[in-house]
Amino acid sequence: MFSNMDSREFRRRGKEMVDYIADYLDGIEGRPVYPDVEPGYLRPLIPTTAPQEPETYEDIIKDIEKIIMPGVTHWHSPYFFAYFPTASSYPAMLADMLCGAIGCIGFSWAASPACTELETVMMDWLGKMLELPEAFLAGRAGEGGGVIQGSASEATLVALLAARTKVIRQLQAVTPELTQAAIMEKLVAYTSDQAHSSVERAGLIGGIKLKAVPSDGNFSMRASALQEALAQDKAAGLVPFFVYLSGNQEGVWLHVDAAYAGSAFICPEFRHLLNGVEFADSFNFNPHKWVKRRTDLTGAFNMDPVYLKHSHQDSGLITDYRHWQIPLGRRFRSLKMWFVFRMYGVKGLQAHIRKHVALSHEFESLVRQDPRFEICTEVILGLVCFRLKYWDGTQNFTDAGQGSNQLNETLLQRINSAKKIHLVPCRLRDKFVLRFAVCARTVESAHVQLAWEHISHLASSVLRAEKE
Amino acid sequence: MFSNMDSREFRRRGKEMVDYIADYLDGIEGRPVYPDVEPGYLRPLIPTTAPQEPETYEDIIKDIEKIIMPGVTHWHSPYFFAYFPTASSYPAMLADMLCGAIGCIGFSWAASPACTELETVMMDWLGKMLELPEAFLAGRAGEGGGVIQGSASEATLVALLAARTKVIRQLQAVTPELTQAAIMEKLVAYTSDQAHSSVERAGLIGGIKLKAVPSDGNFSMRASALQEALAQDKAAGLVPFFVYLSGNQEGVWLHVDAAYAGSAFICPEFRHLLNGVEFADSFNFNPHKWVKRRTDLTGAFNMDPVYLKHSHQDSGLITDYRHWQIPLGRRFRSLKMWFVFRMYGVKGLQAHIRKHVALSHEFESLVRQDPRFEICTEVILGLVCFRLKYWDGTQNFTDAGQGSNQLNETLLQRINSAKKIHLVPCRLRDKFVLRFAVCARTVESAHVQLAWEHISHLASSVLRAEKE
Repeated sequence: MFSNMDSREFRRRGKEMVDYIADYLDGIEGRPVYPDVEPGYLRPLIPTTAPQEPETYEDIIKDIEKIIMPGVTHWHSPYFFAYFPTASSYPAMLADMLCGAIGCIGFSWAASPACTELETVMMDWLGKMLELPEAFLAGRAGEGGGVIQGSASEATLVALLAARTKVIRQLQAVTPELTQAAIMEKLVAYTSDQAHSSVERAGLIGGIKLKAVPSDGNFSMRASALQEALAQDKAAGLVPFFVYLSGNQEGVWLHVDAAYAGSAFICPEFRHLLNGVEFADSFNFNPHKWVKRRTDLTGAFNMDPVYLKHSHQDSGLITDYRHWQIPLGRRFRSLKMWFVFRMYGVKGLQAHIRKHVALSHEFESLVRQDPRFEICTEVILGLVCFRLKYWDGTQNFTDAGQGSNQLNETLLQRINSAKKIHLVPCRLRDKFVLRFAVCARTVESAHVQLAWEHISHLASSVLRAEKE
Repeated sequence: MFSNMDSREFRRRGKEMVDYIADYLDGIEGRPVYPDVEPGYLRPLIPTTAPQEPETYEDIIKDIEKIIMPGVTHWHSPYFFAYFPTASSYPAMLADMLCGAIGCIGFSWAASPACTELETVMMDWLGKMLELPEAFLAGRAGEGGGVIQGSASEATLVALLAARTKVIRQLQAVTPELTQAAIMEKLVAYTSDQAHSSVERAGLIGGIKLKAVPSDGNFSMRASALQEALAQDKAAGLVPFFVYLSGNQEGVWLHVDAAYAGSAFICPEFRHLLNGVEFADSFNFNPHKWVKRRTDLTGAFNMDPVYLKHSHQDSGLITDYRHWQIPLGRRFRSLKMWFVFRMYGVKGLQAHIRKHVALSHEFESLVRQDPRFEICTEVILGLVCFRLKYWDGTQNFTDAGQGSNQLNETLLQRINSAKKIHLVPCRLRDKFVLRFAVCARTVESAHVQLAWEHISHLASSVLRAEKE
């Protein structure tokens, strides 16, 4: 025996951990949502090397509250309004425990058939909930299908690489003397100037020019602006090959990233926001991705060393997900979807989305009632972008662009150092803007009301200080 | 309420799940290690769409044994000798439960300081266990440091991209008129012709020429062969910039991938196999990665949208791991290392490695005692590559290269369809070879003996059939 933990001990400790987790989540409201630690806080609290002899489980568990929890940002606190909501629910945690115990690496069908097959079917379930066009589904004989990627950044990168491989092959078929590098030099991908940083990064990794198409007053990319950019670049001898976000003409690969908004499309009243997805080649939302022609994707990554070969491989019947992604390894992540879809039902999931959207509108109306603040973008789902208006120090608050950036930076700093709630900012063109994202599964109207009172109170104090 | 599971119910179901997991692992020997299912087995067993109304937890749990388990390849069975060992232990599972409950996404220091800081210190602990040169450690003010990547493929890709960015910048500094594409066309990365498919894939994704350097009789890349390739390519106007595996001259980036072998280097008696790592720029083993100059890595990926900015960001004191990897998101994975290192102690981990190495030598000596078989590569750690020799049908077994490929393919097929043990093959040059990898945490001498008896018995039956 090398560890002091056998299955008998695990039964005991596992049950204690279940209670610890339930206690943690039951009491999460009482913890400061953002930790009060400085960079480097942890290193002095633990030894500089691993222990030679085993320690006891009690020693480790004591350190959780002493060393780890003081440095945790509590993403599932109902006072966490930063970044974006992340999946967390009791059924998901139970599925994750099982996933860890099975502990398989599902890189090929043979490495664990259930792992691959459940993922394919769960992605179909989810695609149907979103009413994705039939072409995106695997079905029994479809050419499309979905995959759970490690993250949205990866989904974007994989789509870009698949498109890159496709266009290089197409061009080399016509003009065999063109080298890959000569083609890559001419390739251009397009995105809105408001797109997520992961797109820029995908371009960087793929060695591809990425052009930001100017957005309009609503921060949307207009087809006309995109057409103009495409025409200009074509005239200059470049090869447009990939558009991230919206609009599909010109034979380019269209990738739609619905990010966190994707989940909302399971509610019929929000589904219209996804209209046009039928023109896309690939679609993702956190953390899932579909393609129409699976061969476009697998063609870019296919690697078949003999130690990963298995007898069913060339039958055309099976999916080897390693060809769909960058890592070789993958967990049995579809178990979580299976547990959650079944324990909530589509209706339960819809109700959850609707509650979050209602809470963001509740926050929006609180902001709108305060003349010192403005709403910066239309509130559609669970995110409210707002800021203090420009203030001349005497009477009026006006919307004057960058004028109030400093004021809003100060306000955000005050909010986050108070540690009652946690927000992060964004930049909309030149404006520094506060983001209020409805995140936690357990957030209720009372938390939103308290958060607003708190923000409003700190705003008063910032403005008062400004005056003095 | 949208789900029928609150914290009270979770306490009950979580404890049941702990028992289910312990029962599963206690009884794993009794399950066929490789599943008896055909591609597509799962789809007809579950509905085609998600349920509208919530289902009960009992319904879901019943389906685990009915639908999931029959399709699982049991990676933690002591009869699983395929692929490579994967981490699984009770302390790791407990840490994973906690990781799921905290549920943070550690893309920046601020997103959860404990998540980032524990990872940095755990990677230092691990680096010290391996006696990695000081330059690879983060320490308090080091320029190096480690990161847990999602997979080894990702670690290789990230190292290649960092090297690519570095050389492009260096060349453009000297010759500003060179475009990125013009440089990329000249870049060459080198690897042994025996390297893992993930290297080829990294080259493909990075848009980089990858050359396979011929290996010697022991399947190792010799410095002389590499030097020859470098000299040839330089003479042809190309730019060697990245070597995967061994040897560092010529100012190229040297990346050492110790893959699964890395763990063994915590035992002093195996550490010499890693000699020379001090000349490397980056090093990884499953699933971890270190670099000497962290700025080389972060320089390739740095993206700073304002919603990810935080006040400590530019202090130089903190680590934002999102710049070290491809995905934005990341789990609190270092908790697992922390639990495991402490519960086993370095001595416990060493004992575990030594036991696995001893078991592979035990298997090796069984193979050597049988004149029908040959050992194909030196057995150093936990992997035995072996095969049936060529057989003339009457008397002698001889080592005759490809001659016995068909025989060995048949043998492997028989082994895997019997489902008592599970192996996968590899190809060493033109030879089809069987791999016996000591994988499960719970494998003992008795399992190895039984596995060999079984293989030997099936070999007899294959040879008998051959004769008829």
